[in-house]
Amino acid sequence: MNRQIRLKSRPDGMPSADNFEIVDAPMPPVSDGDVLRRTTYLSLDPYMRGRMSAAPSYAAPVNINDVMCGHTVSQVVESRNPGFQPGDLVAGYDGWQQYAASNGKDLRKLDPAGAPISTAIGVLGMPGATAFVGLLDIGQPKPGETVVVSAASGAVGSIVGQLAKVKGCRAVGVAGSAEKCRYVVEELGFDACINYKTDDLVPALRAACPQGIDIYFENVGGKVFAAVLRVLNRNARIPLCGMIAEYNATSDPGGPNLRPLLVHRALIKGFIVSDHNDRLPAFLKEMTPLVREGRIKYREDIVDGLDAAPSALIGLFEGKNFGKMLVRVSSDPAGGQG
Amino acid sequence: MNRQIRLKSRPDGMPSADNFEIVDAPMPPVSDGDVLRRTTYLSLDPYMRGRMSAAPSYAAPVNINDVMCGHTVSQVVESRNPGFQPGDLVAGYDGWQQYAASNGKDLRKLDPAGAPISTAIGVLGMPGATAFVGLLDIGQPKPGETVVVSAASGAVGSIVGQLAKVKGCRAVGVAGSAEKCRYVVEELGFDACINYKTDDLVPALRAACPQGIDIYFENVGGKVFAAVLRVLNRNARIPLCGMIAEYNATSDPGGPNLRPLLVHRALIKGFIVSDHNDRLPAFLKEMTPLVREGRIKYREDIVDGLDAAPSALIGLFEGKNFGKMLVRVSSDPAGGQG
Repeated sequence: MNRQIRLKSRPDGMPSADNFEIVDAPMPPVSDGDVLRRTTYLSLDPYMRGRMSAAPSYAAPVNINDVMCGHTVSQVVESRNPGFQPGDLVAGYDGWQQYAASNGKDLRKLDPAGAPISTAIGVLGMPGATAFVGLLDIGQPKPGETVVVSAASGAVGSIVGQLAKVKGCRAVGVAGSAEKCRYVVEELGFDACINYKTDDLVPALRAACPQGIDIYFENVGGKVFAAVLRVLNRNARIPLCGMIAEYNATSDPGGPNLRPLLVHRALIKGFIVSDHNDRLPAFLKEMTPLVREGRIKYREDIVDGLDAAPSALIGLFEGKNFGKMLVRVSSDPAGGQG
Repeated sequence: MNRQIRLKSRPDGMPSADNFEIVDAPMPPVSDGDVLRRTTYLSLDPYMRGRMSAAPSYAAPVNINDVMCGHTVSQVVESRNPGFQPGDLVAGYDGWQQYAASNGKDLRKLDPAGAPISTAIGVLGMPGATAFVGLLDIGQPKPGETVVVSAASGAVGSIVGQLAKVKGCRAVGVAGSAEKCRYVVEELGFDACINYKTDDLVPALRAACPQGIDIYFENVGGKVFAAVLRVLNRNARIPLCGMIAEYNATSDPGGPNLRPLLVHRALIKGFIVSDHNDRLPAFLKEMTPLVREGRIKYREDIVDGLDAAPSALIGLFEGKNFGKMLVRVSSDPAGGQG
């Protein structure tokens, strides 16, 4: 049997367990040319909230009764395709299920000697590429500039700040607990971190950014964004990659007044990493050694078993995760800790 | 005597006549190397509201008891500078007064045979350059795209739409009366114009922009901006040059939710035309023949006499002007109608 989690109903506000249905489906058929694989890791990411809604967004919604979407790391268990062997480790987009089959064009083979395979959907996957494209291509950091990133201990934010340090910038995080802030500064090497739940944001930003903010990597929306606008430098850049604080809003949350953009000649640019696949080779070439050398660290928050995915996704919107949120759907064949 | 209008007090909300003081000052001294000139036209522009406030902005405020700032066209009446002759017509930044003197480095000589001299502070001056830089450099219009501009009958908006047509785009205006809308379509050649006071903005924008909005030239802020965000195309560009609807707000007017920027990968870029003086030669080279050939039209709304400036500026914030707002401080020596 192939256990799957399907979208049962669309949430109104915060998703709940009722929006999901756990189903034991038949194994997918394997036709000539196909590759059957077993999911090892499933990535849980904020964008999934958008796919649960019918509202127009940058990608089509998941249909009711369809398997929830998601990036995965898997192991090939049967191959009728000469390009794949049983035992191969692959990254794909198989969603919330134990098994998937396809012709393999949607798969990328992984080398478990290169890095733990879970990184293919984390620091060396979509979240890492999001940090890379947003910070470097839109943010265009210059040595000595100040970069602020929200959700700083998360999958994307943690990479943004460390990459900013690699580029010679001052990195300032914003996170939701003292523990996360400590981690961001002490483990990841950010210069400072602000606790948005307890700190008075504007004075805290001014103190942490004595030379103002040149780049704000926008991950969350809400009051952090509004505060940042008051501390911008001239010609500041704001790559806008997500607004997790607002994804579960049931009424229009509005936004900050944008006059600071005019006063400071600032730029905001929304982006979706999947538009920038041409940057993936450069991303992997630059990031892989940084990760291997430990200059860019990552932290994973792993829950075990597919059935844990719904509550883990809800926890992501509540800021309960600490690091990249992953589901270990089956044991890691490469022996990684995730 | 040199009649001047000085800033007497800072407005709270909409300026009133009480914020200004009319003073008959002595004539300015003319030292060796100086040029004395008499103001012909004074330009009234929305940015002046920012200069009346003490709040930090992109330029220093006018100090209390200082002459109000402003772009001017003047005629030289006395020159102790070999570069200028009495009778020369010049554009400068002499502010709200009848006479000014300086060493002339802040002056640009005008050729009255080239275009009516009032255009040097209008279609061929700062407002025209604002339209040019914002639309072309930030907006990057491509033939067939749709350009929407607010305050479409005004000094900047009217040029944005006509320049969009020159570049092969669909031009859609937003203005505050049926008469202004008629002018924008029938005289200026826009494809459509929406009356923001009477039309339901989102459906009206969808009807006027059947292929969506590629560029929104943001002049006003407020509800027009919020509506436009709902009709954006992928990779839309929003040059942000002003927010006149909000300049007199006495509490934070907030703003629209920015999630559409993410969904549509849109860009907002604030800009101040004075940062782009390197573009002035290209601007004049391209725009002067377009104006001379009548391919770009302009309309001036002229009040007579310096004393009329305060009420005319207030009218600008109330949308009472129809075209570029000018004060004729003294009769036009080139015989122009303004």
